[in-house]
Amino acid sequence: MKIVIIGGVAAGAKAAAKSRRLLPDAEINLYTDDTHVSYSACGIPFYVEGNFEDYRTLLVRSPEEFAKDGIFIHLQNRVSKILPECKKILVEDLITKNAFLVNYDKLIIATGSRPFIPPIKNLALNNIFTVRRIEDAIAIRKKIKTSKEAIIVGGGYIGIEMLEAFVRQGLKVTLFERNDHIMSIFDNDMADLIQSQLISISNGRFEIFTSESVSEFTGDNNGVNGVRTASGKSLDIDMALICTGVNPNVEIALDCGIKLGATGAIEVNEKMETCLPDIYACGDCIQVNNIVSGKPVWMPLGSNANKEGRVAAMNACGFPDLFPGVLGSAVTRCLGLTMSATGLTEAAAMEAGFEPVSVTVNKYDKVGYMPDANNITLKLTADKKTGLLLGGQGVGAGDADKRINTLATALLAKLTVEQFVNNDLTYAPPFSPTIDPLLNAAQILMTKIEPAS
Amino acid sequence: MKIVIIGGVAAGAKAAAKSRRLLPDAEINLYTDDTHVSYSACGIPFYVEGNFEDYRTLLVRSPEEFAKDGIFIHLQNRVSKILPECKKILVEDLITKNAFLVNYDKLIIATGSRPFIPPIKNLALNNIFTVRRIEDAIAIRKKIKTSKEAIIVGGGYIGIEMLEAFVRQGLKVTLFERNDHIMSIFDNDMADLIQSQLISISNGRFEIFTSESVSEFTGDNNGVNGVRTASGKSLDIDMALICTGVNPNVEIALDCGIKLGATGAIEVNEKMETCLPDIYACGDCIQVNNIVSGKPVWMPLGSNANKEGRVAAMNACGFPDLFPGVLGSAVTRCLGLTMSATGLTEAAAMEAGFEPVSVTVNKYDKVGYMPDANNITLKLTADKKTGLLLGGQGVGAGDADKRINTLATALLAKLTVEQFVNNDLTYAPPFSPTIDPLLNAAQILMTKIEPAS
Repeated sequence: MKIVIIGGVAAGAKAAAKSRRLLPDAEINLYTDDTHVSYSACGIPFYVEGNFEDYRTLLVRSPEEFAKDGIFIHLQNRVSKILPECKKILVEDLITKNAFLVNYDKLIIATGSRPFIPPIKNLALNNIFTVRRIEDAIAIRKKIKTSKEAIIVGGGYIGIEMLEAFVRQGLKVTLFERNDHIMSIFDNDMADLIQSQLISISNGRFEIFTSESVSEFTGDNNGVNGVRTASGKSLDIDMALICTGVNPNVEIALDCGIKLGATGAIEVNEKMETCLPDIYACGDCIQVNNIVSGKPVWMPLGSNANKEGRVAAMNACGFPDLFPGVLGSAVTRCLGLTMSATGLTEAAAMEAGFEPVSVTVNKYDKVGYMPDANNITLKLTADKKTGLLLGGQGVGAGDADKRINTLATALLAKLTVEQFVNNDLTYAPPFSPTIDPLLNAAQILMTKIEPAS
Repeated sequence: MKIVIIGGVAAGAKAAAKSRRLLPDAEINLYTDDTHVSYSACGIPFYVEGNFEDYRTLLVRSPEEFAKDGIFIHLQNRVSKILPECKKILVEDLITKNAFLVNYDKLIIATGSRPFIPPIKNLALNNIFTVRRIEDAIAIRKKIKTSKEAIIVGGGYIGIEMLEAFVRQGLKVTLFERNDHIMSIFDNDMADLIQSQLISISNGRFEIFTSESVSEFTGDNNGVNGVRTASGKSLDIDMALICTGVNPNVEIALDCGIKLGATGAIEVNEKMETCLPDIYACGDCIQVNNIVSGKPVWMPLGSNANKEGRVAAMNACGFPDLFPGVLGSAVTRCLGLTMSATGLTEAAAMEAGFEPVSVTVNKYDKVGYMPDANNITLKLTADKKTGLLLGGQGVGAGDADKRINTLATALLAKLTVEQFVNNDLTYAPPFSPTIDPLLNAAQILMTKIEPAS
């Protein structure tokens, strides 16, 4: 049995390790154009922030460790073609420039995603970065040491995490977001709250501009030294970071006849099977089912990639297993502010054909007399007709994330507000008010649900 | 409409407030033998600990505030008899010693619980305390100021919380637990872990002895000055605290013909109705359904009391509502150690007729490279035949409580391990490892479930 895996960050590395445990005798080869394998891409902002000194902390498992388990990792080996008819892949060694064919019995595509770069002039200047690979992390951290001012283009999860990293490293930061809201996976009202709360703790360390596109970088042989925006702002800077989202790496899949879904990512079934026999896909390059809406979504996150890699390996190795889909759960924090969400936003719920009603509560996360009690704002959304819980968003200095994980489980189980409202959550003053903010929101939401006729 | 409520800590106070909102014109009277109403009994350890200076912080709502809403609070008025035939109660004013009858249309019993005191010699000495009322809290905190050594009898939730309070106030503390384990709502293996982790952080500030009964206090007119145990230990002490559990206050209910359940607490249905018409009960004096086992349990906790008080008011006021029962969720912390649990322990699951299988994992609560990553030990239990999730216990310096609340929701929804294992929980390095410890435990537990034939 020859298992071949393309890509080796989260999904690919997981698929390789799981395949080995399932089939001790299989031949397992993993090809990646990357210089590293099995690393925590999500950890890069925390390395840049200075939480640890050695970038190797980001490496989960080295090629040598894989080799000990008989998994052969081929770094800087780009797979340029899949030949499904003869079950081979064409590989190009990026160092030697040699090309060669490799046979597979089962192929697992885990090619991930790559940064989307908007059209800005002079992008080729030095010290303009994206966050993707270990080299990026090292280069960014090195450049910080000689920098005072930086801009970040894009106010999504990565942009916000890198904002904290830069600020903690002493940089003065300006963040530009092209859309009218940062953190667009939240509803606009919650995104407004995020922005105002961030600004309230900025203390002169950073500024955030929305509806502002970067049009041009300026610089010289030393690299970027300025930036101009579409509205005419101009700034002197030492470095720039572009975090305007990612695109799925689907070219070789598309090229060999693998069907893409409506999101532009690879379409797979619950077994992680593509439309071609013996070819599986997992991780940032695929779309999956959103459990709440029942519709395909592209949700490139490390947690999903890890689980999908496991399920792809299970099925490729002959152990049937199903991946139910995702809820869209995600969390981040910036300078003490937690932002956590699961399920559909109110806007997404409407788009998915629900009739959403929402309640937003602002409460302490603990009993108010505890010295470390902090506020959280929770928005809870359900379908007006059926009472089905649809999603929730939590923002604040307090523990919003506990509530969102609690809610995620309710979404997984397709509970209604009525079924959820008396949930027996733990209570003690250092952990929650007597009535948890989440249940408080559910109590109020109950009054907005139309009683079943 | 005359609504009468007996008892006014959590359930009674909630029932009064909710009744007012539901029926603006109802006459609402609340009788309590206590000197205070609507206070956070669960907050007393945190007041004693010194998190805030003024005991009035524990008071949620004063009689005057209730009066503004037309709710009449009668403090130090003991209800000595219920006369269901004529829908009256007999009340004794503890100050004036007058007794009088009060009519009701709907009666809500929220008489709560009282400390269970084991047979120990010389219990009447001064400076031997229980934790129940505001006066207890004030007296304990006052006595701490002139004390150096204290004992705590009983190693349950309250004993453990008071241990932290005493230690933080600079007392040298010895805790005696009659049973062979402290925190007996956990399985023995987890209780062992709790004890060893507490001892490892004790730093000479406290000792814990299990299987050790206190037999006798010694003292003089100034109060207690020593203690002797059944095994012959003797200690000089300045104060003692007895936290050996509570008993439900059911005497007046029993006396008027209200049926008690198997647990010794008042039996109610999902509407919080007792066996007698127009008499409801809620809070620490009732038993409720355990959602996982389907069996009645007595679970005297403030979070339950609050919800039950709300449901009792709903039904008493003519707005049908059901209380589904409890999961047994509870949490506490002691000197940085979190102890959180929901559902059935492995032992309780066996007793309830399940065939439990468990997995215990020890993991970081965040990605290991985050500076504030801490360990948690999670025990996850399911039924071997059906895969139904039965319960979980979490202990550690890390965030065990988030995982337990996530699991509680899965128990509420009666999910199997298989349905739960790919739950989409939030992930970012400051919040969770890529695979959350709870999902990690579920993955391993999957291998112990018998496949459905």
